[in-house]
Amino acid sequence: MTLSTAAPVAATTPAQVTRPHEAGSAVGTLDAARARSLAVEARIATDPAGFRVLTGERPTGALHIGHYFGTVANRVRLQQAGVEIFLVLADYQVITDRDEAGDLPATVREILLDYLAAGIDADRTTVFTHSAVPALNQLLLPFLSLVSVAELDRNPTVKAETAATGGRAMSGLMLTYPVHQAADILFCHGNLVPVGQDQLPHLEMTRTVARRFNQRYSAADPYFPEPDALLAPSPTILGTDGTKMSKSRGNTLPLGASEDETARWVKRARTDAQRAITYEPETRPEVANLLTIASLCTGSTPEQVADEVGGAGAGRLKALVTEALVEHLRPVRARRAALAADDGPDVLEILARGNARANEIADRTLADVRELMGMVYRHG
Amino acid sequence: MTLSTAAPVAATTPAQVTRPHEAGSAVGTLDAARARSLAVEARIATDPAGFRVLTGERPTGALHIGHYFGTVANRVRLQQAGVEIFLVLADYQVITDRDEAGDLPATVREILLDYLAAGIDADRTTVFTHSAVPALNQLLLPFLSLVSVAELDRNPTVKAETAATGGRAMSGLMLTYPVHQAADILFCHGNLVPVGQDQLPHLEMTRTVARRFNQRYSAADPYFPEPDALLAPSPTILGTDGTKMSKSRGNTLPLGASEDETARWVKRARTDAQRAITYEPETRPEVANLLTIASLCTGSTPEQVADEVGGAGAGRLKALVTEALVEHLRPVRARRAALAADDGPDVLEILARGNARANEIADRTLADVRELMGMVYRHG
Repeated sequence: MTLSTAAPVAATTPAQVTRPHEAGSAVGTLDAARARSLAVEARIATDPAGFRVLTGERPTGALHIGHYFGTVANRVRLQQAGVEIFLVLADYQVITDRDEAGDLPATVREILLDYLAAGIDADRTTVFTHSAVPALNQLLLPFLSLVSVAELDRNPTVKAETAATGGRAMSGLMLTYPVHQAADILFCHGNLVPVGQDQLPHLEMTRTVARRFNQRYSAADPYFPEPDALLAPSPTILGTDGTKMSKSRGNTLPLGASEDETARWVKRARTDAQRAITYEPETRPEVANLLTIASLCTGSTPEQVADEVGGAGAGRLKALVTEALVEHLRPVRARRAALAADDGPDVLEILARGNARANEIADRTLADVRELMGMVYRHG
Repeated sequence: MTLSTAAPVAATTPAQVTRPHEAGSAVGTLDAARARSLAVEARIATDPAGFRVLTGERPTGALHIGHYFGTVANRVRLQQAGVEIFLVLADYQVITDRDEAGDLPATVREILLDYLAAGIDADRTTVFTHSAVPALNQLLLPFLSLVSVAELDRNPTVKAETAATGGRAMSGLMLTYPVHQAADILFCHGNLVPVGQDQLPHLEMTRTVARRFNQRYSAADPYFPEPDALLAPSPTILGTDGTKMSKSRGNTLPLGASEDETARWVKRARTDAQRAITYEPETRPEVANLLTIASLCTGSTPEQVADEVGGAGAGRLKALVTEALVEHLRPVRARRAALAADDGPDVLEILARGNARANEIADRTLADVRELMGMVYRHG
């Protein structure tokens, strides 16, 4: 998984959500999206201040190394490049597909610790929660008037999510969440959204909302940007069972895990019956996954790691992966432990600051939107 | 039409929205609703302070005498009885079924003039607009998580609205508006909603949302009331063409019309070929409509008015109706003219006060809701 914009997708999406009959057009779109992403990367290198990124996740649990090597590393990279980032913790989206949100303050605190430990800088990146920003949420109303129910029904990710929830009746919040996501992105005039390819249709909904709003209410001077997708460069890290990492499958390694837990997680990771270690992602996905992790930790290519292990087999590979992970994550985990300590800083204070900033921006955007829509009732 | 709770229904609903195959159960529900309404009226008489009413309309045009004799007179009656009333001008709901909202501030000003002229007292009744109350709108998010898409699809009024818009694709805002209406009613803990019988399913949605919220988040001490329906006692006033009054049909008489306009409107009203005037609503709806109007203005029963006219025919009836309307509406129109005068008060100031009060209440409710849902992230 490479990103989760306020998305129910964050924790639960099956790896493949594009339906067979849609694959043809999706691939065409994908090539174009890849080309656009490359062009965007080039512009970021020369003009990082020209971009504002909106991304985030549902606070359903502490982050794991899949998030870390996927979305979070990419966010830190963009932040270090000088791009302003807004990170939404989409607390309302937790209840799109379940009744119980769990202990949200505890979960949010864990994720904040993960962010800060991984290099998110609260002075440069704004972290906020949906529930604390009413003006952002109000944008759902005018935006819902700009899309048809047929368009909401067609969204392939919504369809896949519904399938993934095993026949549970789809909630109104699930059906409308691509429009809520448009509000997330547009309230701060976000113009760049890191996405996995399965999320391109969501971003298309945001682009549609922005375009229709502009056509209807600010044709002379388009108010909202039509945000670009940034296809995330990072690979997907699989869980111990060879499937996508997901807390509910019990196959994840939390970012804040101890060295022992890391060793045990690697030990549990599925490999295959071939002794010689080779990097063949298509035919040997589990082995390739371990090689990828080692590669991400050491800077070697997966092929180089494979050559290093060679005939020494899976045991040797696992020892190497464990060591690489422990070494690579040592400073992250040390920072996390210090932040989490009783005498550490109050990380929820960072959220309060982020929420204040998000409210300030959302209030301004909503005031503009009301003005453009002719919904300002001036008196005396 | 007997009421329009923040409803797209206000201006456009066909008189009969219950589908034939649903009539059986609807009638059963209707009998029960009538019985409950009578019980509520009895309680209002002894404990008006025990009720808070939410009602309102879409600001699509100035009010006409159909509104006046229907919803507005009933609101004034409740207000005079000591019931607290919240009146929402549902500006976002204007764009559920059209692209252009028109000149909203001008329309809202006209409606405020109509309200005040008709007897709404801004010191006892809170008038507010949707777009000005973000915390109310935010309630749409948690409430959408409590209803299924199947339930939204099933709403008969949504179905009828869709049919009435002539094949225009239904917007996401239209599909979700019964849930938005739940937010309208529940943000102020409204426990009584005057409705026409075609709107009972909407109120049922609000009751469902309240019940599910309480079950999930405040089982020990139910937070939201399950509001009662108050079936409006007033008859529906038809337009000149014998159909429901609707600005788009050009068959209405605005509350603020002049005496000449009133006379012309009555003159245009359709009658039938029978000379003798009798009150037979089923077989002579147009004549019955005129008799009803005269009855509402004079306090006589429609039958008494019919007897008075007798064989003098439709011409005499129309002269009588014109005189009755002009007399009855004279003080209302005089107040309206004084309020609308250049040196009159700034009626939009009343809206500003209402919006401030609605925001105060909505902020408090949202804070409670966030607390109950575990979405408060306290720091140091």
